Amino acid sequence: MPGGGCLGTALNQGGKSVKISVEHIKEAAAHIGANIHCTPLFFSRTFSEISDNMVYLKAENLQRTGSFKIRGALNKIYNLPRSERERGVIAISAGNHAQGVALAATKAGIPSTIVMPETAPIAKVVATRGYGAEVKLYGNVFDECAALAQEIQAKSGATLLHPFDDLHVIAGQGTVGLEIYSQLKELEVVMVPVGGGGLIAGTALALKGLKPSLKIVGVEAEGAASMKYSLTKGAVRGIDTAKTLADGIAVKKPSVLTYDLVQRYVDGIVTVTEEEIANAILMLAERAKLIVEGAGAAPLAALLNGKLPYRGKRIVVLLSGGNIDVNILAQIIERGLVQAGRRIKINTQLEDKPGQLHQLLGILAELGANIINIYHHRGKMGVELGVAEVELDLETRDLEHTQRIYAYLNGRGYKTEYAGWKNRKGNG
Amino acid sequence: MPGGGCLGTALNQGGKSVKISVEHIKEAAAHIGANIHCTPLFFSRTFSEISDNMVYLKAENLQRTGSFKIRGALNKIYNLPRSERERGVIAISAGNHAQGVALAATKAGIPSTIVMPETAPIAKVVATRGYGAEVKLYGNVFDECAALAQEIQAKSGATLLHPFDDLHVIAGQGTVGLEIYSQLKELEVVMVPVGGGGLIAGTALALKGLKPSLKIVGVEAEGAASMKYSLTKGAVRGIDTAKTLADGIAVKKPSVLTYDLVQRYVDGIVTVTEEEIANAILMLAERAKLIVEGAGAAPLAALLNGKLPYRGKRIVVLLSGGNIDVNILAQIIERGLVQAGRRIKINTQLEDKPGQLHQLLGILAELGANIINIYHHRGKMGVELGVAEVELDLETRDLEHTQRIYAYLNGRGYKTEYAGWKNRKGNG
Repeated sequence: MPGGGCLGTALNQGGKSVKISVEHIKEAAAHIGANIHCTPLFFSRTFSEISDNMVYLKAENLQRTGSFKIRGALNKIYNLPRSERERGVIAISAGNHAQGVALAATKAGIPSTIVMPETAPIAKVVATRGYGAEVKLYGNVFDECAALAQEIQAKSGATLLHPFDDLHVIAGQGTVGLEIYSQLKELEVVMVPVGGGGLIAGTALALKGLKPSLKIVGVEAEGAASMKYSLTKGAVRGIDTAKTLADGIAVKKPSVLTYDLVQRYVDGIVTVTEEEIANAILMLAERAKLIVEGAGAAPLAALLNGKLPYRGKRIVVLLSGGNIDVNILAQIIERGLVQAGRRIKINTQLEDKPGQLHQLLGILAELGANIINIYHHRGKMGVELGVAEVELDLETRDLEHTQRIYAYLNGRGYKTEYAGWKNRKGNG
Repeated sequence: MPGGGCLGTALNQGGKSVKISVEHIKEAAAHIGANIHCTPLFFSRTFSEISDNMVYLKAENLQRTGSFKIRGALNKIYNLPRSERERGVIAISAGNHAQGVALAATKAGIPSTIVMPETAPIAKVVATRGYGAEVKLYGNVFDECAALAQEIQAKSGATLLHPFDDLHVIAGQGTVGLEIYSQLKELEVVMVPVGGGGLIAGTALALKGLKPSLKIVGVEAEGAASMKYSLTKGAVRGIDTAKTLADGIAVKKPSVLTYDLVQRYVDGIVTVTEEEIANAILMLAERAKLIVEGAGAAPLAALLNGKLPYRGKRIVVLLSGGNIDVNILAQIIERGLVQAGRRIKINTQLEDKPGQLHQLLGILAELGANIINIYHHRGKMGVELGVAEVELDLETRDLEHTQRIYAYLNGRGYKTEYAGWKNRKGNG
């Protein structure tokens, strides 16, 4: 692959050799600047102390449409020849790309059509329509949506916007790198989530062009680490499934374009587990007061779980988006409460006669435990005659409180069995 | 009450006539500036459209310690005579005041003691200790804490910091007004939450001094509207109970100081219900990607529920803090999902023979409803022999989906009874 100096890279796109450099990103910034927010960069004392670094959060979750995606979409549309632009744009997405393209098109005064599967959450449909797009719900999987998109394209001559395999999109996403640099020239490490690789490719190109000494680290979800896999294999490779709570980076295969840029400018890729992502989301809500989606929380998850060798460095963590379903957020909070010992399930046995449950509840009231659910079983398999089993779901103050409750009940002769807090969510 | 011109007010504090003006607030800003964040002011397209105004969010939830309280505490400590300062400070609080005082004292290099009731949430205790304070847990009610605080004060000579009845505290809180003005000189209306009244007194004094034409509107929770009650009565009056989800503004009585300033500079006080506050918290999380506590969300609740007569105005909504218990947040999300038709409870009856429940679940799976809980009762009072009752807690996509499920089940001969989503939270 021919190099282009520290500020430029020759790439092969569709058979043509194309050059992209930090200058393209500066041009992109000049074109799209009026339509995006320069999102704040917050220093975080909490995360600095936990990770033993100086940690800054780039709050791209506060960007218009709730993620960085509008940057690339705006730049792509700006660079379309006028004749093409007038025919409008199409995107296939039920996620952040959909909303980014919809608002970018509206800002440019052109029509947009977004194709989503029929199962798309209504909130996404409403938001995307709210940004001015026509939303078409069709089929259940990507391929069905793609077929419809091609049909629309054939009829209308509109341009299909790829979410990452496009130099103008990559240059647009890279504008976040310019912003970071203007906000903190002393930065030493930048951590960026990786899905298809458009965001990290653009950001790395911008930042390495401005400050070659800094380190760029990509973060993928363990269950969707296609970029890391490709780097290991030395060429673009797909993975069979991409399943993660961080749906914004659940991508099965990067593109040649993003792969090449990552290989050239990114210093390493690390992965995080679902548990680590969920905890990072919860910590961002509790400590930083920010709602961040799974993909956006992945870099912080990596930092807080010691996946990087850095100490005492100025690290910028890119919170790429905040479009998390509140249903998922509620589940994450609930799980976090269990882990923190603030929700417990106790199984115990009572003599099967009047007043026994009343007595137990009196003790729990005195101990300050709040009851969420009670299940009282008589004649349960494996429980001897004359004995009833009680399951209690309790809300407690903290782990110490929980332990005090156990100790007290055991001291009063209740045989308690710690059952954790089983996942109350089944599947229809 | 003697006036002091548009930039100064003579007030009676402890028998002495004291003057406070925008100049005091500017001095406060100069003293505390290095230790606080200038928090961002975000334009909100969503809330602008809903309220038909131009709405800006002053994100004081992103302030150090998660609320504005550190401003007043820093200014108060700065203004203590050196000899008093060295003996340290005390506060009685399990809320934002505790954390504000703790960090302010640490920044000033002096000791702080915070007295909290024994029932204080462990998260608050840990956070306050984390900011460098010694936390004393004592008693169950404010009076018991106050007794201990006085005892400590008598021994150590430390200064007890009142959360709002103090000119230096009020001047410190007022610095948020200067910031707002520097960020948006064109502003026309500012909405501020009201508890004891320190924040609105300082903010109003600053902003009316800088721009007399603008309107300042205070917002109280309906269940804790002591300032509004006092204004109605024409003098400081207490209310018997102050109970609201917005615990940061659950204050039974303002002070003479804050009352006088509010009466002079505030254009009106409106109230909001618990439901309106909860919805505003949820909308801030979903749309603005910000975690805001009840008190902080109250002004937006007022704006979104048409409590103000303004249209087409530049309105700044002060989000005063973000320290909400995640337990409460999870409950608010759950309630919001019910209201949006995304969680339902269905009661129906089945023939009491094998395969009936399996068949029903097959239908629900096909309809895309996710099961959270199932309760299957046989021999329930009021249910005829040979029939079992089933209660289903379901997760659905939206109201339309929910209605489709009802219609389908009824069409297949299931007698369904809409039971809403009962509050699953009991009380031990």
